[in-house]
Amino acid sequence: MQFEKGVPVIWLAEFTQAKLVGNKEQTANGINEIHKVRKGDISFVDNEKYFNACLMSAATVIIINKEVDCPEGKTLLVCEDPFEAYVKIVKHFSPFEPANKMISDSAVIGEGTHLQPGVFVGNHVIIGKNCLIHPNVTIYDNAIIGDNVIIHSGTVLGADAFYFKRRKEREVQYDKMESCGRVIIEDDVEIGAGCTIDKGVSGDTIIGRGTKLDNHIHIGHGVEVGKNCLFAGQVGVGGKAIIEDEVILWGQVGVSKDLTIGKGAIIYAQSGVGQSIEGGKVYFGSPVEDARTKMRELNWIKRIPEIWEKLTAK
Amino acid sequence: MQFEKGVPVIWLAEFTQAKLVGNKEQTANGINEIHKVRKGDISFVDNEKYFNACLMSAATVIIINKEVDCPEGKTLLVCEDPFEAYVKIVKHFSPFEPANKMISDSAVIGEGTHLQPGVFVGNHVIIGKNCLIHPNVTIYDNAIIGDNVIIHSGTVLGADAFYFKRRKEREVQYDKMESCGRVIIEDDVEIGAGCTIDKGVSGDTIIGRGTKLDNHIHIGHGVEVGKNCLFAGQVGVGGKAIIEDEVILWGQVGVSKDLTIGKGAIIYAQSGVGQSIEGGKVYFGSPVEDARTKMRELNWIKRIPEIWEKLTAK
Amino acid sequence: MQFEKGVPVIWLAEFTQAKLVGNKEQTANGINEIHKVRKGDISFVDNEKYFNACLMSAATVIIINKEVDCPEGKTLLVCEDPFEAYVKIVKHFSPFEPANKMISDSAVIGEGTHLQPGVFVGNHVIIGKNCLIHPNVTIYDNAIIGDNVIIHSGTVLGADAFYFKRRKEREVQYDKMESCGRVIIEDDVEIGAGCTIDKGVSGDTIIGRGTKLDNHIHIGHGVEVGKNCLFAGQVGVGGKAIIEDEVILWGQVGVSKDLTIGKGAIIYAQSGVGQSIEGGKVYFGSPVEDARTKMRELNWIKRIPEIWEKLTAK
Repeated sequence: MQFEKGVPVIWLAEFTQAKLVGNKEQTANGINEIHKVRKGDISFVDNEKYFNACLMSAATVIIINKEVDCPEGKTLLVCEDPFEAYVKIVKHFSPFEPANKMISDSAVIGEGTHLQPGVFVGNHVIIGKNCLIHPNVTIYDNAIIGDNVIIHSGTVLGADAFYFKRRKEREVQYDKMESCGRVIIEDDVEIGAGCTIDKGVSGDTIIGRGTKLDNHIHIGHGVEVGKNCLFAGQVGVGGKAIIEDEVILWGQVGVSKDLTIGKGAIIYAQSGVGQSIEGGKVYFGSPVEDARTKMRELNWIKRIPEIWEKLTAK
Repeated sequence: MQFEKGVPVIWLAEFTQAKLVGNKEQTANGINEIHKVRKGDISFVDNEKYFNACLMSAATVIIINKEVDCPEGKTLLVCEDPFEAYVKIVKHFSPFEPANKMISDSAVIGEGTHLQPGVFVGNHVIIGKNCLIHPNVTIYDNAIIGDNVIIHSGTVLGADAFYFKRRKEREVQYDKMESCGRVIIEDDVEIGAGCTIDKGVSGDTIIGRGTKLDNHIHIGHGVEVGKNCLFAGQVGVGGKAIIEDEVILWGQVGVSKDLTIGKGAIIYAQSGVGQSIEGGKVYFGSPVEDARTKMRELNWIKRIPEIWEKLTAK
Repeated sequence: MQFEKGVPVIWLAEFTQAKLVGNKEQTANGINEIHKVRKGDISFVDNEKYFNACLMSAATVIIINKEVDCPEGKTLLVCEDPFEAYVKIVKHFSPFEPANKMISDSAVIGEGTHLQPGVFVGNHVIIGKNCLIHPNVTIYDNAIIGDNVIIHSGTVLGADAFYFKRRKEREVQYDKMESCGRVIIEDDVEIGAGCTIDKGVSGDTIIGRGTKLDNHIHIGHGVEVGKNCLFAGQVGVGGKAIIEDEVILWGQVGVSKDLTIGKGAIIYAQSGVGQSIEGGKVYFGSPVEDARTKMRELNWIKRIPEIWEKLTAK
């Protein structure tokens, strides 16, 4: 998320009750998770294992729970609980705005676009031209929808990321990460009925141009789906997965978070993708393998009794 | 889909800019995909492999991309892009009618039927007697619902078929097939919360009398579910599958398109049905097998280390 | 379900046209399935196999289809069809109350709680303080929601149990069990978009304090989910399962009905839990096994060709 205008680090230190280390004069332009961070951004780290990665990242302001050497030109906000400080900043700059009508006054709806009854369109949503939004669709604040998009009933765009920090010592163990990213649906996308596409935690969840989703599909926070993909019913994709162009996922496929599926990959029904896989190939199984390899394995399993017989006959 | 009155083939030729071959005097009564086509219907074919099947089918008017010999009494509409011509005809005779209220004036609601708040009922929908439609259900145009039907919240009846033609050479590769079929829910059906039942492409999607669906079930376009079936939560059924009477599908079962599950078959949870299976049996696995065979295989897998030991001990 | 005041057994006998056996003077205080029954309750049994369990249970009034010896102090209601009699009583004391507005007048909404547009809140619902209910959520009658609860769009709380009695000899084979239980969401729970949580048949479906559910999750009737659990997208849990505290279910996991998952168990994505499993362990597979055992099995499968080669080389 980018701020509307630069925020002085000195204000941030006071707001989060952090100790200011390093450059005390600059301003922050936005706030982002480590994998999306850009120059001028605030990010946070609370695990020594990732200190270096964060300190060496593009982040200009780093919320951290240990006073370490501050890299040249950066600013550290040293505090006990960087997660909490990060969430506090997000909530301040991206507060929840309650709605009292189905179509927000701040939404922009393009020419030729038709919204059926029962559609909710949140604040600052932008919908392009010649779209058709079927009844009882929900579009949370800040979503951006291109031209010629069709969205079927019951679908929800922009619910919060499923992202929590566990605090085992507390009675209520899971602390909510506040999401401030957006959902972006590019031109010529069709989304089936009863789908859910979560907003990004700090960046955007993107469905690329010309991609078609069947019903009951779940797309996690920050996922980037390429152009001209085809996902069949009940597919689920975990947070921040990257799915390149022209990927085909058949029904009930599950995709874990934080991985990449290469361009043009085809995944057969009910498969489970647990790690990054190359494009241009056909996959099957849970966990997924090359489809032909998997088929051969299934055949070998059927031959175990024959092996046993041969072995014991001797 | 049947037309309200016969459409002269000469009009169709002009409308689709096709060359008229064969009988130039007759009229078409409807439009259908090849597997549903009846005498008097228009159908289309654009792949030489299926030319014969289409020409020999019951179709009276055939949109085709090659000038071939016209069977006696039929009419060919020869054009470059039969898919496009077919879609153009469907859009003309079954145009989208925007709604501006939750319950369409053209809907017919039977005696004793109660619609809870937030229910959308589209144009020309017919709902029978003594039904209970829970809040926030969406019923698209032209659906037909019998008597004593219960539909739980969030369910969507009649979203478009997930059916696209790929045009790899274009920037936006998937061309939408316009659906003009209906959803038909027979008497005494109960449909759980958050289900989606798509309309047929040209024919009907049918849920047979007395069938009960749990939550989150996805039924694809043109599927025909028999009477007294029981589907547990999160089952998904692909387009045009035929599921005969008294079939039981346990949770998260996936069924591919274009296949038949025989009467009384029972499929255990999380199984994947990839091809037609006989009725009266119990199945398990992905891909599905006879349940006992599958269980035996799972046991054999556990014995591989024993086999290895025996083999290497010698 | 508890009745508002005691119901004389003599009235019940007349209402259900049953023969009264045993104590004819007492009153019943509630009605419950056998696994939830308490002193003062009515329960039913129609299968000789379970006669003893029901007669020896805490139930005070037993609807039964055979005149057996009545245990001291209890009352039997002997009739031909105990299921039908039970359902008749439930319908009488827990009748469906049609709604004509989105927020029922009898609902109680706590301070600081915000309901977005399109939310349906049924009769007698109680929602605590500082909750946020996103657009197009449906909350059926009698649900109880604690403080600081977040519910995302499209989610449905309190749809009917998926519970039917099969009558193979009838034309419409499945007889609906009427549900009169509630959904209870404890404090600090977050429920994602497009989830469904069914009410209990006679008891309550409970989501424990601090538990977080991702999108598209299905929780069956009477399920009890403990505190601080984490369920990823598209998980499905069958009726009356008990899931203890701090259980983590990854995406698309399926859990059968009537079983227990022990505290702190972790189940990997797409696994299927078919029977009770111990807490504190990690599981994988369908059917589920200890995760390491399962991984080893997957590796052994890959070695079958090697075994075959070794075997045939001799």
